[in-house]
Amino acid sequence: MTETCPAHLVALAQRLADSSASVIRRYFRTPFSVDDKADHSPVTIADREAERIIRTIIEAQRPDDGIYGEEFGTKNLDAEWVWVIDPIDGTKSFITGRPIFGTLIALLHQGRPVLGVIDQPIVGDRWIGVAGRPTTHNGQPARVRPCPGGLAASMFGTTSPDLFPGADYDAYRRVVTQVKTSAYGGDCYTYGLLASGYYDLVVESGLKLYDFAALVPVVTGAGGLMTDWQGNPLDANSTGQVVAAGDPRTHREALAALAG
Amino acid sequence: MTETCPAHLVALAQRLADSSASVIRRYFRTPFSVDDKADHSPVTIADREAERIIRTIIEAQRPDDGIYGEEFGTKNLDAEWVWVIDPIDGTKSFITGRPIFGTLIALLHQGRPVLGVIDQPIVGDRWIGVAGRPTTHNGQPARVRPCPGGLAASMFGTTSPDLFPGADYDAYRRVVTQVKTSAYGGDCYTYGLLASGYYDLVVESGLKLYDFAALVPVVTGAGGLMTDWQGNPLDANSTGQVVAAGDPRTHREALAALAG
Repeated sequence: MTETCPAHLVALAQRLADSSASVIRRYFRTPFSVDDKADHSPVTIADREAERIIRTIIEAQRPDDGIYGEEFGTKNLDAEWVWVIDPIDGTKSFITGRPIFGTLIALLHQGRPVLGVIDQPIVGDRWIGVAGRPTTHNGQPARVRPCPGGLAASMFGTTSPDLFPGADYDAYRRVVTQVKTSAYGGDCYTYGLLASGYYDLVVESGLKLYDFAALVPVVTGAGGLMTDWQGNPLDANSTGQVVAAGDPRTHREALAALAG
Repeated sequence: MTETCPAHLVALAQRLADSSASVIRRYFRTPFSVDDKADHSPVTIADREAERIIRTIIEAQRPDDGIYGEEFGTKNLDAEWVWVIDPIDGTKSFITGRPIFGTLIALLHQGRPVLGVIDQPIVGDRWIGVAGRPTTHNGQPARVRPCPGGLAASMFGTTSPDLFPGADYDAYRRVVTQVKTSAYGGDCYTYGLLASGYYDLVVESGLKLYDFAALVPVVTGAGGLMTDWQGNPLDANSTGQVVAAGDPRTHREALAALAG
């Protein structure tokens, strides 16, 4: 039986995204202080309040579920159902006033991502991926596009060249020098746009579980492939090297370019 | 006397932006073919129709003015007033469904840019810069922010590392390795956000007159500096290397880093 996600949990995820969106819209392009986290990434009151409202609702509605959030840590990670939350993926875009960040909400069932939401609250874009069902964008089916020419014909996206550590940077350069067109910036938004057929390939590295767990159901439910750089499925033990593609040939050729 | 721009020409520029915005909104995220130009940059029917409607209005209202557009070339470049148009600056963002491109409308008076409009028609952001007057964003004053820590404390933006030709790439690397935070993507939108105090520094290269003419009045009217990589004012003969900063110290230190 294909694993899926009960409808009432999909509805709850939508409610979580609605609540975080209302927090984020209130802070977008207003004065707030930007703090540095231990890893030197920026964080704001909007990240913290958005995660707090999501956690408050989960704890009230589903007190036994686990939670893994970017800003406030983990709880009950051995529960059957675990919510994985990144309140603002793309905080650099948020603090520069660019509406290309997103709220990420994933639900793991026995460790496997069965639900993913990518929500862009300023433009009003919401992708929902549910295991075994077609991905939707604002309620309409979303579908990757074919790329018969493979890597050499592809529209490639990645957030920043500065996010590839060590030898991963050289691997990224091998990919970007073979694609047709490259565009930068976007974090999770790029994966939603790939699911809707606007990009052919995304390669990133250094991602945490809360950065990629929600993306997997969105991309795969739209007919795409999303794996680590060796072609393995992504799970809680993945190293954070990810490749997403709309077309199997592009995916295969990107893996080969990454391997060098 | 400080040069400025008559109010009726500012009003005309607003009308041009309104008209191009209605064309662009009609095509955003719809199926259209993407053609390659001679320089391998992409172009769509939206770029062409947006420039066509702008030119049609200018030719009807101001038949003696010059026009320099990205898609349909030049006319009367020795006129007293010359309109410089890029209907979609950031076509890669437009074709990937990202609302961070912009329409650029500049007006040169005897060769000097006296008016610049940056219009983002999906989000609804419009910056207007007029020589000798404060820049506005959606009708409210826009102002750069101070950056007392200079380059090392700056939020740096640039569209793509892949757009720096030859030795310019090494110069960009010298800058990006000295800033506090870097964010990629955005084309003209980044300069508007710098004028509103969200970025401290933008460095780019390979720009054409229609890419930067509208940006200069917006950035300088917001209290920022925008020059070439040697610190000279930008004009029609500039090489396309540009640096924009909100704070004089950041600008000075960026010039030094670029010089190596």
